[in-house]
Amino acid sequence: MSDVSDWWRTAIIDMEPGRISLRGRPVQELIGTTGFAPMIWLMVTGDEISGPRADLFEAALVAAVDHGPQAPSIAAARMAATCGVGLQSAMATGLNMLGDVHGGAGEQAVELYSAVDAAGFDRLGETLDAWRAAQGRYLPGFGHRFHKPVDPRAPRLLALVRDAARQGAVSGRFAQIASAIESHLAAERGKPVPMNIDGATAVIYAELGCPAPLARGFFGLSRSVGILAHAWEQRQQGGRNKGPTPPAYRWTYDGT
Amino acid sequence: MSDVSDWWRTAIIDMEPGRISLRGRPVQELIGTTGFAPMIWLMVTGDEISGPRADLFEAALVAAVDHGPQAPSIAAARMAATCGVGLQSAMATGLNMLGDVHGGAGEQAVELYSAVDAAGFDRLGETLDAWRAAQGRYLPGFGHRFHKPVDPRAPRLLALVRDAARQGAVSGRFAQIASAIESHLAAERGKPVPMNIDGATAVIYAELGCPAPLARGFFGLSRSVGILAHAWEQRQQGGRNKGPTPPAYRWTYDGT
Amino acid sequence: MSDVSDWWRTAIIDMEPGRISLRGRPVQELIGTTGFAPMIWLMVTGDEISGPRADLFEAALVAAVDHGPQAPSIAAARMAATCGVGLQSAMATGLNMLGDVHGGAGEQAVELYSAVDAAGFDRLGETLDAWRAAQGRYLPGFGHRFHKPVDPRAPRLLALVRDAARQGAVSGRFAQIASAIESHLAAERGKPVPMNIDGATAVIYAELGCPAPLARGFFGLSRSVGILAHAWEQRQQGGRNKGPTPPAYRWTYDGT
Amino acid sequence: MSDVSDWWRTAIIDMEPGRISLRGRPVQELIGTTGFAPMIWLMVTGDEISGPRADLFEAALVAAVDHGPQAPSIAAARMAATCGVGLQSAMATGLNMLGDVHGGAGEQAVELYSAVDAAGFDRLGETLDAWRAAQGRYLPGFGHRFHKPVDPRAPRLLALVRDAARQGAVSGRFAQIASAIESHLAAERGKPVPMNIDGATAVIYAELGCPAPLARGFFGLSRSVGILAHAWEQRQQGGRNKGPTPPAYRWTYDGT
Repeated sequence: MSDVSDWWRTAIIDMEPGRISLRGRPVQELIGTTGFAPMIWLMVTGDEISGPRADLFEAALVAAVDHGPQAPSIAAARMAATCGVGLQSAMATGLNMLGDVHGGAGEQAVELYSAVDAAGFDRLGETLDAWRAAQGRYLPGFGHRFHKPVDPRAPRLLALVRDAARQGAVSGRFAQIASAIESHLAAERGKPVPMNIDGATAVIYAELGCPAPLARGFFGLSRSVGILAHAWEQRQQGGRNKGPTPPAYRWTYDGT
Repeated sequence: MSDVSDWWRTAIIDMEPGRISLRGRPVQELIGTTGFAPMIWLMVTGDEISGPRADLFEAALVAAVDHGPQAPSIAAARMAATCGVGLQSAMATGLNMLGDVHGGAGEQAVELYSAVDAAGFDRLGETLDAWRAAQGRYLPGFGHRFHKPVDPRAPRLLALVRDAARQGAVSGRFAQIASAIESHLAAERGKPVPMNIDGATAVIYAELGCPAPLARGFFGLSRSVGILAHAWEQRQQGGRNKGPTPPAYRWTYDGT
Repeated sequence: MSDVSDWWRTAIIDMEPGRISLRGRPVQELIGTTGFAPMIWLMVTGDEISGPRADLFEAALVAAVDHGPQAPSIAAARMAATCGVGLQSAMATGLNMLGDVHGGAGEQAVELYSAVDAAGFDRLGETLDAWRAAQGRYLPGFGHRFHKPVDPRAPRLLALVRDAARQGAVSGRFAQIASAIESHLAAERGKPVPMNIDGATAVIYAELGCPAPLARGFFGLSRSVGILAHAWEQRQQGGRNKGPTPPAYRWTYDGT
Repeated sequence: MSDVSDWWRTAIIDMEPGRISLRGRPVQELIGTTGFAPMIWLMVTGDEISGPRADLFEAALVAAVDHGPQAPSIAAARMAATCGVGLQSAMATGLNMLGDVHGGAGEQAVELYSAVDAAGFDRLGETLDAWRAAQGRYLPGFGHRFHKPVDPRAPRLLALVRDAARQGAVSGRFAQIASAIESHLAAERGKPVPMNIDGATAVIYAELGCPAPLARGFFGLSRSVGILAHAWEQRQQGGRNKGPTPPAYRWTYDGT
C-alpha cells in the first residue's frame, strides 16, 4: 500500500472489513476446529502441528504452568493483585520477571543440546566442559534446589518423548542427549543432578525443531497460566499492598 | 507451618521434594492427559472442564489471539522486540496494555449480560439505558470501527454456543441476551452495530459461569499468543529501536 | 507534514537534525542551567517553576523516594533484579505496581482536597461523609499502619508549605484543608489518624495547581528512585530467583 | 531480628514507627535541604554529592529526558495511555523498553571508556578494534541516525565536564577519551560520527566514578520524565486504543 503500511508488514495476519485470516486461514475456520495449543504453534511458527507432535507441545505447556508462590514471578503477581491494578497488569508484572535466570534456562538448554548434537555424542564430556568454561558452572536444565532426587515432571515428559519417537513422530535424539547429560553429571558429582522442568521441556522444543528463543517464549505463555491463577486467587483473598513477609517482620537494616 | 508460610497460603499448588500437586492432582498425571485449555481452566477456577464446555472455552481462547499490528499491544510488543530486551519482556509490554479500554470490554460485557439477565429479558431497553447512563455511550462488546457489518468471529462463536446449548452443556441464555442486544442496537441506530470479539467471547465466559474479571484474564492469555508471534516475527525481521512510523515521517510539533 | 506525522503531534519536543527544543527551549540552554526537578515540571506541565514553588516541588519528590522492602513495589523490583533482567526492567516491574491502592492515594487526596475546597470549609464534615459514602471508609492520605502517631514526613512538608504561603508563593489553603481533615478525623476516632506521605505531598501538588492524576505520575518518578536504589543493592548482594521468604519456609497449602 | 527479616536486609532505609532514616539520615532533615538529583545519588550510591559534581549529575539527568514520539519507549507509553491503564502503568510500559539497544548504550559506553582508560591512551585504535571484534560494529555512544553532524546535547555536556575538571571536581580524563574516540572515528570514516547523548552522559557517569550499570539506571530515571510528559499529553489529547499509524493505513500482509 505505502511505505507506512510496509513499516508494519507481517505474515501472521491479514484483514479486510469482515475478514480476518490468521497464517493464511480464515479465523472462523480455525475457531471450533483447532485446539489452543496447536493454535499457539500455528501463530508463532507459521506451521501446523498435529498428532503426537501436538501432544508433546501440549504436554510441555501443561507441565510448566506453576511452581508456587516462592517463585519471584508468582509472588510479584500476587503482590501486584493487591495494589489496585488490573488483572492483566498483575500478569505482566509476573511475566516480565522471566528473565535469563528465572525463565531463560529452557532457551539455554535447547542451545546446549544443539551444541552436543553438533559436536557428536562421543564428545559429550568435552562439549559440557567447553560450555561451562564459557557460560559458568551451572548447566541449564539440570539441578534443582528443591526437587531432589527427581523433579516429577521430567521423567514423565521424557517418557512421552520416547513414545513419540517410537511412533516416528520425532527423532528422540534430544531425549538421549538430555539423559546422557543427566548421567554424566551424576557420575561427575557422585550424586543425582536431576533434569528439571526447563531441561525436560527443552527436550520437547528441540525435538519439535523449535528455535531456542521460542523455548523461553512458550515458557512465558505456560507460566502465565499460573501467574493468572495466583493473581486471581490473591484478589479473592483480599489484602492491600501485600508485602513479601507478614508486616510484623520488617527487614534488617545493615547500614552503618 | 508458621505465620510466614501462612502469609503465602494457596489452594493452587502443593509441593514437597519430588512431589508437585496442582489443584489436588499430581502433576505427572496431568501431563500428557490434559489439554492446555482445560489445564488453564483447572488452574484458574479450580474446576475441571471437559466435553462441549471445554470446546467452548478453547474456541474463545483461539478466537482472540490476534488483531494485527495496529492494536497498541501488538505494536508495542514488536517495538520492544527491537530494543534489546528478552522475548518475555516484549510479551509483558504488550500484555500490560490490555487495560479497561483495550482489553476490558470482555469483562464489562459479562457484567452487562449479567445485568440484563438479572433484570429480565422484557426490560432489556431499560437495562441498556441505565448502563449507558452510568458508564458512557459505548456498550461493551458491540460495535467495531473496522469489521463492518460483521466481525467474522462473532457469528461463529455464537453458533458454537447454540450447539452446546442444544446438547445441554450450557444454558444458551447469554447467547440470547447478546443477540437481543445486537438487534436492539441495530433497531436503535438504524444500522448494524455488530457484536465484536469481546462481546462474543463474553457470551462464552458467561455461559461457563466465569466471574467477569476472568474474562479479561483469559483474554490476556489468548492475546499473549499473538503478542509472542508478532514479537518473534519482528525479531527475525530485525531492526533497532523500531518507531511507530518510518523514520522519515517524524511527528508534528504543535507547541507555540 | 502529513496525516502520518499529525498522528503523533506533540507540544513537548521539536527536532531537526542538530536541533532539539524542549517546551520551546533549546536543549543546550536547559542543560547546566535547569535543575532536574524544575525540568520535570517544565516537561510535564509546560510551565516553568522557580523559587519557593520549585522548592516545594523538589521537597515532595525527595520525600517519597522510598518506604522500604516491605512495599510490594520495592520487594518486586529486588526480586526482579535476581531474575536475569536489565536494571530498567526491574525498575518497570516496581513502577508498574503503583496502582490505585499502592500509589494512588496522592491522586485521590488531591481530589478530596479539591472537593473540600469547592464545598467550603464550613461544610467539611459533610464533604468527608459524602466522600466516604461514595468511595469507601478510608480517606486517602490519612492513616498509616506503621507510622503512629506521626509520619515524620508530613509535618515537615506542611511546615514548608506554610513557609511558602507566608512568602506568598502559594495560597496555603490546601495545607489548612489537610490539617482540618486530620483534626476532624482525630476528633471522630478519639485518636490520631496521621496525615501520611500521600496526604502531605498531595497538599503540595494541590497548592501548585497540579491536576490530580499528575500526583500519581510524580509519585511514580519519586518512588522510582527507591526502586532503582533497591534493585541495584540487590544486584550487588547477588542471589538467583529471590523469593519473598527464605526458601526453607515455603507456603501453606490450604486446598482440599 | 530473624532469618525472615535478614532475607530482606538493606543499607538504604531504616524505620521505626514515627522514624524514617534514608542512608543514615532522618528523612525530615533531607526534605527541604536536599535537591532531587543529589537525593537520587545519595539513595542509589550511598554517597553525598554536591558542588560541581552534583551539577554534572543534574545536567546528565536533564539532558536525556526526551527524544520524541518516534522513540519506541515514548510511542508505547503514549499508546498505553489510551488503553485504559493508570499513568504509572503507561510509564512502566515505556521504561520497560529501555533495553540493551534502546537505552543500554550509556552503560556500554562507560565500559568502553574504562577499557580505553585501562589500556592507555596510546593504544586507542587497538582497544576500539578489539571492542568491535568482540561486540559488533557499532561503538556505543557514537553515531546518530538523525542528529548530523552534531547532537547538540553532547558538546554542551562535554563543556560542562571540562569546566568541572578545571575546578578540580573531576579528572576530565573521560572527556578526553570520548573526544579522542570521536576524532578517531571521524578520521576512520572520513566523516563525522558524532558523540550522542549516551556517549556524552556516559562521560559524566564515568567522571563521577559511577558503575557502568547505573548509567542505564540513571538514564531510566531521566527518560521516565519524558515518558510521563508524553503519556500525560496523550491522555489530554484523548483517543482510544491509539495504534502506531492512522487507522486508514493498516499494515502490509507479506504472507503467502
